[in-house]
Amino acid sequence: MITRRISTAITIGTVVIGGAAPIAVQSMTKTDTRDAAATVAQICRLKEHGCEIIRVAVPDKEAAEALASVKKNSPLPVIADIHFDYRLALAALKANIDGLRLNPGNIQDPDHIAQVVKAAKQRNVPIRIGVNAGSLPPAAKQYDSMARRMVDAALKEIELLHRENFDLIKISLKAFDVPTTIEAYRLMATEMPYPLHVGITEAGPPKSGTIRSAVGIGILLYEGIGDTIRVSISTDPVEEVDAAWEILRSLNLRQRGPLLISCPSCGRSEVDILGLIAAVEKELKHIDKPIKVAVMGCIVNGPGEARGADVGIACGKGKGAIFRHGEVVQTVEENNFLQALLSEIRNLTEH
Amino acid sequence: MITRRISTAITIGTVVIGGAAPIAVQSMTKTDTRDAAATVAQICRLKEHGCEIIRVAVPDKEAAEALASVKKNSPLPVIADIHFDYRLALAALKANIDGLRLNPGNIQDPDHIAQVVKAAKQRNVPIRIGVNAGSLPPAAKQYDSMARRMVDAALKEIELLHRENFDLIKISLKAFDVPTTIEAYRLMATEMPYPLHVGITEAGPPKSGTIRSAVGIGILLYEGIGDTIRVSISTDPVEEVDAAWEILRSLNLRQRGPLLISCPSCGRSEVDILGLIAAVEKELKHIDKPIKVAVMGCIVNGPGEARGADVGIACGKGKGAIFRHGEVVQTVEENNFLQALLSEIRNLTEH
Repeated sequence: MITRRISTAITIGTVVIGGAAPIAVQSMTKTDTRDAAATVAQICRLKEHGCEIIRVAVPDKEAAEALASVKKNSPLPVIADIHFDYRLALAALKANIDGLRLNPGNIQDPDHIAQVVKAAKQRNVPIRIGVNAGSLPPAAKQYDSMARRMVDAALKEIELLHRENFDLIKISLKAFDVPTTIEAYRLMATEMPYPLHVGITEAGPPKSGTIRSAVGIGILLYEGIGDTIRVSISTDPVEEVDAAWEILRSLNLRQRGPLLISCPSCGRSEVDILGLIAAVEKELKHIDKPIKVAVMGCIVNGPGEARGADVGIACGKGKGAIFRHGEVVQTVEENNFLQALLSEIRNLTEH
Repeated sequence: MITRRISTAITIGTVVIGGAAPIAVQSMTKTDTRDAAATVAQICRLKEHGCEIIRVAVPDKEAAEALASVKKNSPLPVIADIHFDYRLALAALKANIDGLRLNPGNIQDPDHIAQVVKAAKQRNVPIRIGVNAGSLPPAAKQYDSMARRMVDAALKEIELLHRENFDLIKISLKAFDVPTTIEAYRLMATEMPYPLHVGITEAGPPKSGTIRSAVGIGILLYEGIGDTIRVSISTDPVEEVDAAWEILRSLNLRQRGPLLISCPSCGRSEVDILGLIAAVEKELKHIDKPIKVAVMGCIVNGPGEARGADVGIACGKGKGAIFRHGEVVQTVEENNFLQALLSEIRNLTEH
């Protein structure tokens, strides 16, 4: 039901972004980049959670020097995040990184930009023009619309890349404000053919930041806008990757691991359904296959959801019916709910 | 930027749903309804978190008997959730509840429905036609589209209400599948004028369920669809209410308490920014005013976001600039970040 915007495709290391490629999940390391070992360890942990591309801040010369080791040992394609100093971008390219991110206006001299673009072109390394509402360059005119101002900042920087006949471009237009972000991406989606990196910036602490990101990124993806996503929240980046996957799964854009359909519980439940759901969720973390599991607390929606899942349980008073592919395969007592359900799940995933 | 669908307005107790009324936050109790005291205690806790309407399951006669006490002591309007037995709906109406929820097809005899509708009409009590993909009545024809089948099930039930000249109607069309849910609400939005209660059903455990709900509800609200929302997740209902508010806030549809704009941190940060953000978040829970606070870890987006907030901090190496309404008011050392920021926030909120 989602018609994806048609974009050009670029390649970050081994990962294609744009065109018909799957929407890629990315994150950013939060370690001190100068500590290459800690940075690589964090990248490995992020990869386990499904991160496909990693970005690394390169704030100074030491960080740029450590980048060679990070890149050499990273199991994921590495994007260098550069601000202010074009020499850091040149150093990052020499360190063999797979992508660059530049913030419009942060490198002010067009000749410096040209040097970076030439070096990127030589190495076939794509550049993301990453606009952020919190760090816009001074505008040449008055704007009523923040979104329009963001888009124009990107277009101006893209023009500098085009001057060097460079088109390995990806664009992002992030604000904390969700409607502003959506408007900016919508505008850009019709003005440039390049793939879009989608995210909500400075979205906040884990709970509020995850919801804000899910709303903003979800709306854009549902409109077909977005070729790679990054959730930005103030916590362990593993949670950013988990959230990104959950957003993609919720729109059926990608599959990863089991889906758990579970009732919220209500006064109708006559078993400890929330306890059962938490226990099942924990066990499902060890399963890779994209099966659907339904854990339901009563006879209103229980049988319907359990029947529609690969494996399900619909609980009544002290008893539960276990479903496999739409058929009841056994009825179990409450003290046996978890074990019976897990045994059915294993039957399905291990054979 | 969001143009809201125009719907008729109904009143649940003291809360208007639909028309130009604010999008209301609701939840459902997870206590045993027969335990009126525990149920009322949970309602009080939910109200503290901003819940505006509460739904209570009424699965049997004892629950219906307890409902009078729940309603009498509830600080929120009460909706009775009824399935299968029309006598429970009649009993709930006698218990003076503010709204009824009926699931199409669950009460099969049209004459029983007519009795419930007549009693509701006498008392001016609205009825929600609550369709759920997991409990659809048998369909009279083959459907290619689950969404269309859901909408038709609602329309058929609405027809029974119209026969009694009853129009105090609210509609919901919930599925676990987000695109199906969106399609169903979109169809209904053009076919009936009634207010819509929006949610994703059986969305799952806290993390995945919250994200799935934020994506689905967020997309609909952004399209202007939805007059009241309920987040359904398998945990303490307080988390449902918190998530619902966060969804509304992220689209600027309603305000509640402070907004925390905070950077995700990266290799650029030279202070413990994630620790500071967590500490600030905790303190902001005690503040009601809808102020904007920005806590930022570096000079890339820090000054821009801090300047745009009511109070902000942009940290550098061991130091931070404190902003108030766009101006730097002081520069503080790292051991003083939290205290200085809180003092500025207090200045703003207590005067």
